[in-house]
Amino acid sequence: MASTTVMTELETFAGERDWAQFHTPENLVKSISIEAGELLECFQWNPDADPERVTDELADVLTYCLLLAQRLGVDPDQIVLDKLAKTREKYPVDRSRGRSTKYDQL
Amino acid sequence: MASTTVMTELETFAGERDWAQFHTPENLVKSISIEAGELLECFQWNPDADPERVTDELADVLTYCLLLAQRLGVDPDQIVLDKLAKTREKYPVDRSRGRSTKYDQL
Amino acid sequence: MASTTVMTELETFAGERDWAQFHTPENLVKSISIEAGELLECFQWNPDADPERVTDELADVLTYCLLLAQRLGVDPDQIVLDKLAKTREKYPVDRSRGRSTKYDQL
Amino acid sequence: MASTTVMTELETFAGERDWAQFHTPENLVKSISIEAGELLECFQWNPDADPERVTDELADVLTYCLLLAQRLGVDPDQIVLDKLAKTREKYPVDRSRGRSTKYDQL
Repeated sequence: MASTTVMTELETFAGERDWAQFHTPENLVKSISIEAGELLECFQWNPDADPERVTDELADVLTYCLLLAQRLGVDPDQIVLDKLAKTREKYPVDRSRGRSTKYDQL
Repeated sequence: MASTTVMTELETFAGERDWAQFHTPENLVKSISIEAGELLECFQWNPDADPERVTDELADVLTYCLLLAQRLGVDPDQIVLDKLAKTREKYPVDRSRGRSTKYDQL
Repeated sequence: MASTTVMTELETFAGERDWAQFHTPENLVKSISIEAGELLECFQWNPDADPERVTDELADVLTYCLLLAQRLGVDPDQIVLDKLAKTREKYPVDRSRGRSTKYDQL
Repeated sequence: MASTTVMTELETFAGERDWAQFHTPENLVKSISIEAGELLECFQWNPDADPERVTDELADVLTYCLLLAQRLGVDPDQIVLDKLAKTREKYPVDRSRGRSTKYDQL
């Protein structure tokens, strides 16, 4: 995922500010959790939420995910596809269809 | 972010299993937080972590982020770029260079 | 945990505001995650944090934990002790001493 | 919150295993977020959850909260009461009654 444009833009943004020093894997992972909490706050008391606010918070989570992928030297697109291949095996269509049951209880 | 391939693959995967019914924005957002916690667990007692395990958990966070973007009808690439434009304004290079200070304290 | 005073105070506080309707287990659990994220934000870029700010955020996490215990009808003190008994078995002193290894890898 | 018994038991437990070295504020805070994620997982696809499983996960969050309070040298009971006093001011009964609106929008 993430076109070359996005990845380059993120790198430039951090580079201009000399922020790579703060972007250790651990700090980026903490940041993902923090932003995931802000995203969840959109739904704190209600299953519905303002889509614009949700989009804004989702963008923050995604940004830190891409920075982490960059730091790890992995391609975001590829790791999602790789994981999907594993998940397909854990959740065969015939047993998981229409059910939210976890794979170890299928 | 997310090439057409990834987005199509995710849609097919969920479609085959009839899982769109579970993928409400709220459930996807809870899932992002849950997976962010598993990603953080790689660093629970240690600033270093096995890159392969980190990659695997990052893929899970990313997958739910992309499913949420799909559900919201937004382009993941575009929302990251839009947010970056706002962040550039909040953190001018000259004031934020080499500092991790939050924008409201710059 | 939680003296009768705290539990009564929390109940009065929510009762006066007619907030029990919002305090479903799911909403309280989301709130715990959200506040845990704010607590983590104290350490986003730095292993050190202002103890006063940390205390303040910890109080928020604890508050929602106590409200959830109340809602579930369990005694916070007792469930911590019960869990500790299980954890003692999973982490025998001789094998876990001075190590942060997870029990399934001991 | 937390009777002397619980606090003493937790201290003995960690002391026997020589785990205080791992219990830095930052590590405990990460642990609170991780466990909050596991608690949230009980509700991932469903607003209802098995109360026993919820209780078990809540106990984990609480345990790390108490260890952090201990580490910070604060009384869990007292900090919840202190915070409640502040929250009472932010949410006056007459304006917040029966509403989940955030204080800055009341």
